[in-house]
Amino acid sequence: MQTSTLKQAKLVIEKPPLFEPLDPPSRLLCGPGPCNPHPRVLKALSMQEIGHLDSAFLHIMEETKTLLRYTWQTNNEFTIPVSGTGSAAMEACVCNLLEPGDKFLVGCNGYFGHRLVEMGHRYGASVVSLQVPWGQIFSAEVLEEHIRKHRPKVLALIHAETSTGACQPLKEAADICHHYDCLLVADTVTSISGVPLHIDQWNVDAAYAGSQKCLSCPPGIAPLTFGPRALDKLRKRRCKVKNWYLDMNLIASYLNKNGSRSYHHTAPINMCYGLREALALVAEEGLEQRWLRHERNALLLWKGLAELGLECLVPQQHRLPTLTTIQVPKGIQATAVTSYMLQNFGIEIGNGLGELEGKVWRVGLMGYNSRTEVVKTLLVALQTALLQQGYSFIRPSFM
Amino acid sequence: MQTSTLKQAKLVIEKPPLFEPLDPPSRLLCGPGPCNPHPRVLKALSMQEIGHLDSAFLHIMEETKTLLRYTWQTNNEFTIPVSGTGSAAMEACVCNLLEPGDKFLVGCNGYFGHRLVEMGHRYGASVVSLQVPWGQIFSAEVLEEHIRKHRPKVLALIHAETSTGACQPLKEAADICHHYDCLLVADTVTSISGVPLHIDQWNVDAAYAGSQKCLSCPPGIAPLTFGPRALDKLRKRRCKVKNWYLDMNLIASYLNKNGSRSYHHTAPINMCYGLREALALVAEEGLEQRWLRHERNALLLWKGLAELGLECLVPQQHRLPTLTTIQVPKGIQATAVTSYMLQNFGIEIGNGLGELEGKVWRVGLMGYNSRTEVVKTLLVALQTALLQQGYSFIRPSFM
Repeated sequence: MQTSTLKQAKLVIEKPPLFEPLDPPSRLLCGPGPCNPHPRVLKALSMQEIGHLDSAFLHIMEETKTLLRYTWQTNNEFTIPVSGTGSAAMEACVCNLLEPGDKFLVGCNGYFGHRLVEMGHRYGASVVSLQVPWGQIFSAEVLEEHIRKHRPKVLALIHAETSTGACQPLKEAADICHHYDCLLVADTVTSISGVPLHIDQWNVDAAYAGSQKCLSCPPGIAPLTFGPRALDKLRKRRCKVKNWYLDMNLIASYLNKNGSRSYHHTAPINMCYGLREALALVAEEGLEQRWLRHERNALLLWKGLAELGLECLVPQQHRLPTLTTIQVPKGIQATAVTSYMLQNFGIEIGNGLGELEGKVWRVGLMGYNSRTEVVKTLLVALQTALLQQGYSFIRPSFM
Repeated sequence: MQTSTLKQAKLVIEKPPLFEPLDPPSRLLCGPGPCNPHPRVLKALSMQEIGHLDSAFLHIMEETKTLLRYTWQTNNEFTIPVSGTGSAAMEACVCNLLEPGDKFLVGCNGYFGHRLVEMGHRYGASVVSLQVPWGQIFSAEVLEEHIRKHRPKVLALIHAETSTGACQPLKEAADICHHYDCLLVADTVTSISGVPLHIDQWNVDAAYAGSQKCLSCPPGIAPLTFGPRALDKLRKRRCKVKNWYLDMNLIASYLNKNGSRSYHHTAPINMCYGLREALALVAEEGLEQRWLRHERNALLLWKGLAELGLECLVPQQHRLPTLTTIQVPKGIQATAVTSYMLQNFGIEIGNGLGELEGKVWRVGLMGYNSRTEVVKTLLVALQTALLQQGYSFIRPSFM
């Protein structure tokens, strides 16, 4: 027994000094995410534990899948939470739907397109990166031209680019894809439940999302949906998915409602509670009401920004209501403003990512945080921070 | 703007009927995990959100890493929580420490060895599976013989086999590995903080664990540690890690304490809170005290089982105090007993996994659940369930 071992080996790493009790500071999270979770979601996270094979848990999982189908507007049976963050769900699309040598066309109009390119390379796809300047979107004409030219097996587009705030239309893209026998994968991380999104009506073949944006759940679990054409591709793979943890063939047999569930990995039980509650809140509010709320508060923000003399990177026509990229005025140091806001008001807004670093701020009004009082608080705080940095402007009407 | 889209597309998936409020049933989780989290951990999970780049979060991450080093008894700088479950951390070892063609020797004495074999194949390693019957362990002689024969780059051993309850000694194995310039990877999912474990003194090169066993945290975050030799192998890789999400080169640059942190993925903030609190509880109790508590309660369980005439699969010498596999007596249907216990007492014990299905029950006494009253409750419930199934035995002393 262990007794002998206990006697033999002494501890070589000393107990660290007692830390202060865990007490994260209060923050108003208006960056690109995570955002403040809804209080009901936080409460759900701390509910008592049940086993991952318990029928009570499988019931919660079925509810979650049903609610997710409503939120994404899809009948896809394979609509699940992935046991990781949004990046894991992104990788699940790449590693399951592409085989080595498959042509993979990626729309790169921001940071996350480039990440897809990187993942595609790693899994041996023949990747074609289609580029427009960050903040712009792809026209149907440009997409058709390149699909005709490259004949990809999969096209990936970022519906809502978290690095730029641009909203890429998907319906025409899907039609073109299907004409050329190509799958359309959509990144809906920053659009799910905040921006109109119709997986089935738009014929999107696969999509993934994050929990920590408009769903107002903490990060750590990520929605994923595969339509019939994506599942067909998965079933007909010539080689196994390299990635065991994200192999959706294995996950499907665990989640299979009919017949025995084979163990794959232990689901993140409490994160599932949180996501289920977050999705229940979407259904209680109603999708259309939720989309309108995000639009209304975005319009209020944009009006306030204009009055501060600030310009948005993305033209209003393609601008996400959930995430706004504000151009940093000349002479202002971007990080000085974000630091000031965090230190003085406990408000987090995001700095620019990738090639927009130092050039924009990123402001998220997502889910629970898409509220009028949040917009107003944010605007006065931003104004104060800008004044501190020597920025001058005409007194805006919201003051 | 979105207004036009809102007008155009109607919802095709109707709002599901309002579900009952989320209310998971009360369970005493005495299976192979998840176990009941400590109440302080559940409370930590629902603490308010902060950003993943917030210095307050980075502070919590540093505390977590420090506590994890104590718990594993290692000075390894690279000791981190992986943003997934224990299986993700297992895959992180395989995909980072092996390159295509590398010889990979895996000790298979239960379910999880076979999983490592499967992962190794997927990443193109040349896998050699070393087998002994489930429930047994590998002697130093057998290991040396096969290491000398196969000259593997990596040997993986399961310190605590969750499918069998066997505890594999690691110290001699590590010495042999290093003599032959081989890395030792250890699965400590069901041993961390419950069984004596000395990563540095035993010279283990890499180890992974789960949060939902003896750490008494829900599943969804997984400890991982790489020692100097493992890091060296990682740095000298000839090809990129296939798996982007689990590429520890990328993670290392995010977690780098000195200099700028480059964004990789959004950490599962609230699961980090939970793990940090779980590890603080380990330090507050003290590792040796915690190991002794697990041993004491295991001895109590084993005494009770013997009095019920039940036999354990693993000889006491190599038996884990954290997870006990009980042989199902002749004439008893294994799942009838587990179902009866769940339905009548809300107590979960595990069925056998893989080739032990129907042959054993798996009883976990881990972390918060390693308590005398849990053992006593479990024993009377098990006795009652067995009686219901027609099992007869002499009246045990605990009645």
